[in-house]
Amino acid sequence: MSSAKKVGVIGWGNIGSGVVEVLYQKGVAGLELVKVCDIDLERKRAVSLPKEYLTRDWQEIVGSPEIDIVVELVGGIEPAKDILIQSLKSGKDVVTANKMLLAREGQEIFSLATSLKRRIGLRASFVGCHSLIHEFQQAGTTAKKFRRIYAILNGTSNYILSTMTREGKGFDEALREAQAEGYAEADPSDDIDGKDTESKIRILLGLISNSYHTLEPFPVEGIRNVTPQDIQYAEELEYSVKLVGVIEEKGGAFNVSVHPALMPQTSLLGSLEGAYNGTELEDEYGVVSGLVAPGAGVYPTTDAVVKDLFDIAEGKALPMPSSGEAVTLGNTAEAERRYYLRFSVLNQAGVLAQICNIFWKYNISISAVIQKEAVSKDFVPVVMTTYMAKEGDVLAAIEKVDQLEVVKAKTKIIRILTADT
Amino acid sequence: MSSAKKVGVIGWGNIGSGVVEVLYQKGVAGLELVKVCDIDLERKRAVSLPKEYLTRDWQEIVGSPEIDIVVELVGGIEPAKDILIQSLKSGKDVVTANKMLLAREGQEIFSLATSLKRRIGLRASFVGCHSLIHEFQQAGTTAKKFRRIYAILNGTSNYILSTMTREGKGFDEALREAQAEGYAEADPSDDIDGKDTESKIRILLGLISNSYHTLEPFPVEGIRNVTPQDIQYAEELEYSVKLVGVIEEKGGAFNVSVHPALMPQTSLLGSLEGAYNGTELEDEYGVVSGLVAPGAGVYPTTDAVVKDLFDIAEGKALPMPSSGEAVTLGNTAEAERRYYLRFSVLNQAGVLAQICNIFWKYNISISAVIQKEAVSKDFVPVVMTTYMAKEGDVLAAIEKVDQLEVVKAKTKIIRILTADT
Repeated sequence: MSSAKKVGVIGWGNIGSGVVEVLYQKGVAGLELVKVCDIDLERKRAVSLPKEYLTRDWQEIVGSPEIDIVVELVGGIEPAKDILIQSLKSGKDVVTANKMLLAREGQEIFSLATSLKRRIGLRASFVGCHSLIHEFQQAGTTAKKFRRIYAILNGTSNYILSTMTREGKGFDEALREAQAEGYAEADPSDDIDGKDTESKIRILLGLISNSYHTLEPFPVEGIRNVTPQDIQYAEELEYSVKLVGVIEEKGGAFNVSVHPALMPQTSLLGSLEGAYNGTELEDEYGVVSGLVAPGAGVYPTTDAVVKDLFDIAEGKALPMPSSGEAVTLGNTAEAERRYYLRFSVLNQAGVLAQICNIFWKYNISISAVIQKEAVSKDFVPVVMTTYMAKEGDVLAAIEKVDQLEVVKAKTKIIRILTADT
Repeated sequence: MSSAKKVGVIGWGNIGSGVVEVLYQKGVAGLELVKVCDIDLERKRAVSLPKEYLTRDWQEIVGSPEIDIVVELVGGIEPAKDILIQSLKSGKDVVTANKMLLAREGQEIFSLATSLKRRIGLRASFVGCHSLIHEFQQAGTTAKKFRRIYAILNGTSNYILSTMTREGKGFDEALREAQAEGYAEADPSDDIDGKDTESKIRILLGLISNSYHTLEPFPVEGIRNVTPQDIQYAEELEYSVKLVGVIEEKGGAFNVSVHPALMPQTSLLGSLEGAYNGTELEDEYGVVSGLVAPGAGVYPTTDAVVKDLFDIAEGKALPMPSSGEAVTLGNTAEAERRYYLRFSVLNQAGVLAQICNIFWKYNISISAVIQKEAVSKDFVPVVMTTYMAKEGDVLAAIEKVDQLEVVKAKTKIIRILTADT
């Protein structure tokens, strides 16, 4: 093997400190830390570095002919994008944990890396299922083709939903609790509105399709509208409510979405509690497998970064989307699945008949119904689950239902995701 | 890359046919199938081969100077062992699915391969968690050190336990059902007595410790004595009963065992149903992750074999135990965990007091008690769970309890395995 690869780290925060600790203090054969950049060099870190290692100017790392690999841990779009682009252009490989950047600017970054034959280590951008990278690492015909991924990729949302389920709390209260315990940020919108999951799903879509041309929008819905009531009904039906990223391949087109979903309580994802991430995969032969791992944290993220560095030092390929051919997104109206529906209807005769007649017209079969004796005289919740139905039909039927005089509020629609239907 | 590696397959059964299909029909860059051996060459297979590929004499493959890699799919100890030994000695790499062979004869096989610098592909021998091999593949300091593995590695046992749980059936009936449905063999003893799990755990222990000197026996108990009664009590306490292989590292010694255990219903392993395998891992930093995958089947096993072949073709290292330093097994009496205990006691005053007094002496704290109103006048089951206690103390206490006049049958002891205690 050639001499050690020289590494420059830009961003000396928590993950940066973890990387410094591994490379500088512990030491990894084939890798040598030579420079670390941060705006704040005064703050005390677990491992301190001699002065000659430090700089406040990232250009010093990106422009250094001595450095082989740049680790970008700055976050955000700029200057992170500039760091990646300039590093690639000056012949360096890069490792990044920046999911938002890769999701938004992947086309430019991956196409540049592909044309320059540079490697991008991106395990840390989806740390909760980064061991998936091994599947893509075996190039050629043995690489598995995945035709379905269901994934819980946001620990904050899963933590909040777990709390709501376990303690019967409302969303706002559970969010405050998560914030107090450090599981949610002061501004939690990236997490709870599904944007973080969206970024990770977009990167996974790029890996699965091998295309960096994946910019079309797909439906994204967060967990703000999940109510304790829905969670309780789901429990009665033996489901959990989870925020799920979905990629389903069918005939070359990809159905992609992020939304709250009902998953069987005893399934891999349905039983996943707390801040964990989980991924359920189905390959082209119908074989289903699963992964569970922490979706964040200094150690797991550091570990992912170091794994990328190590693969680069060993000369291994690092999978990344390398084709510019546009990915075709599927027609979600044609997607078939089961649905959970919660109606708010007047407490009077004939209501169920009116709803069922509409469903009959759209050829939607009902699998289960829960209607409890009414607490309020005015209206009453009715919950139904359907058998497999086309999304377009269900949405059209619900539009009709919501126009009925006896229906007092917009019907709540949650998809049911099961592996085996 | 050099020219294609030439592959000989010995054993043309289901997995052999899968491998032939991938290498000969589909084709894999860097690999060329040149010879297939089986006693029965007449049987119809999905992919037929030209006559010049076929032989009934495995020596023809092992002795061929042309062949680089031998795939052993014969099973059993002989001639499989001979095939491996001779292949290694004649400078070939080998790939095998033979867990029993590697578990029993690993010392001889791995030490020979190590001294000859040959590779052994063994993913298929623990196909249900073979992607773990990636963790061991990153050599040097970045390879994770695992300090705990809990694993469900036998699909047959898990299928039977799932059926007993779901349908309230007894062991014998559930076994017959599994046999009728092809999930258990006519002679199921390897699976249900824990021997299959034992082999896989021994191979994993070899990988984790990097030692092929792992022949000391460790406790192995199968599922024959699991009763519907215990499963039902476990359910009331929110646990599932699973057959679990355990490796726990502490101060350089390994606590290793295979036994039925109570696991939380909503945990990765506790929620695993049917013929699946699952693995829960804790690394040296306390990070817990998990894997779920089919533990058998033509496609998954073929996939594991081909992944090994592919890595060999690519020149990648294939992890195998490579040190002869003996692995120290821990003192199970010192292992601390929680216990489920079911007593059969006379239905009279003072019984609970007598039991509790013995526990008090051994410093064992009781976490939960279930005693239902008696059905029989004679004796009544009492179930207790303990807090963390030393195995030696619990066994000594139960020995004393079983000597009490009021205790009418041997107390049933099942370990409780939880990740977070």
